[in-house]
Amino acid sequence: MDVRALVFDVFGTVVDWRSGVAREVRRVLGPGVDAHAFADAWRARYVPSMERVRTGDLPWTPLDELHRISLDEVLANLGRTDVDAATRDELVLAWHRLDPWPDVVPGLTRLARSHVLAPLSNGNVALIVDLAKRAGLPWDLVLGAEIVQHYKPDAEVYDAAPRLLALAPSEVLMVAAHVDDLAAARGRGLRTAYVHRPDEFGGMRVPPVSDPDADLSVGSLVELAERLGA
Amino acid sequence: MDVRALVFDVFGTVVDWRSGVAREVRRVLGPGVDAHAFADAWRARYVPSMERVRTGDLPWTPLDELHRISLDEVLANLGRTDVDAATRDELVLAWHRLDPWPDVVPGLTRLARSHVLAPLSNGNVALIVDLAKRAGLPWDLVLGAEIVQHYKPDAEVYDAAPRLLALAPSEVLMVAAHVDDLAAARGRGLRTAYVHRPDEFGGMRVPPVSDPDADLSVGSLVELAERLGA
Repeated sequence: MDVRALVFDVFGTVVDWRSGVAREVRRVLGPGVDAHAFADAWRARYVPSMERVRTGDLPWTPLDELHRISLDEVLANLGRTDVDAATRDELVLAWHRLDPWPDVVPGLTRLARSHVLAPLSNGNVALIVDLAKRAGLPWDLVLGAEIVQHYKPDAEVYDAAPRLLALAPSEVLMVAAHVDDLAAARGRGLRTAYVHRPDEFGGMRVPPVSDPDADLSVGSLVELAERLGA
Repeated sequence: MDVRALVFDVFGTVVDWRSGVAREVRRVLGPGVDAHAFADAWRARYVPSMERVRTGDLPWTPLDELHRISLDEVLANLGRTDVDAATRDELVLAWHRLDPWPDVVPGLTRLARSHVLAPLSNGNVALIVDLAKRAGLPWDLVLGAEIVQHYKPDAEVYDAAPRLLALAPSEVLMVAAHVDDLAAARGRGLRTAYVHRPDEFGGMRVPPVSDPDADLSVGSLVELAERLGA
């Protein structure tokens, strides 16, 4: 594999969204809420909310705004009409304050010496920049949904990576903890690496240990750096 | 000024294009060419080449391709029909291998602790990433012309910075060594900082020491960090 650039899914692959959202929900709403169940309910609306944009039911809408719509639904289901608009806006920023898995900063730091690194996330640019700034993620640039106003798995999101980096698709490696994301990237000619993140769903759902269709399957970004000789 | 993000012009403001292009021209074409005159002739075609895109005479064309068209003209004017296509492609990469002014890395490193930093250049993304990787420029993301398929001073380029960063235009500071770039940014509501780069044109053209219309005028990015309390 002559890979020049690595592009990364972010939620679940780079950062632990479930623990981080639960921590912020507990901080903002207090101990009376089951914070992990809240995080799971919010996340369950993630793919359906993007589907509304992908099918044309909604015009282009950045993820922060979709998160706000989904949050209103979660709060309505819990009967929490008491939560005011400012508190809801603060809760949406939970997704900007997620911690990376422990291997991420050492792995990316090694990989950055020899490769161009970019997130390729459905998160909007401001969210992705906030995550990176807070955690010290050494991205070279930010790619992803908002740049092209399409959500993954639309082809436009994957195609923009080699186009903007002036590379062949086969020189770009998509790294993700989700086999469907990798399958869509492979469909656009990108190389793929699967990362096993057993704790993404807090044990509620168990992801496979490897992806037989990917070029590589690894247990961490440090192992990915080793496998790429970085 | 409550500035959250700084966006930078690159050619002349961050990197010394004239010395770098001359160095690469000398390396690739040998000592028989006046390398600085070659760099000046090539750069003289920069604004007119983008005007062809801005006026619709050409469809969107990344700067690397405009540089190649301009290079062919410069070589034709010198009667250098002997320079083959591979050598021309190599010469275009001169613009990917420019050195920053000496204050840039220390200045950006200080500014990055408290502000989001991004290039806002007419250079294509691959070029800007190559420059940053080579020089160690700590950008948080890459903004600029290619993302929106418009060249500065089109409004779309400036407007994309606050839009993608989810900031008010007045929370974004445009930093440039060129008063026309700053005037266009100001027209879109951005704050502006002028950097005096007396050596950009090797003494052939002398830029003003300050820009009375800018919010700030500084002599270096280290001074800019001091002025912003970074």
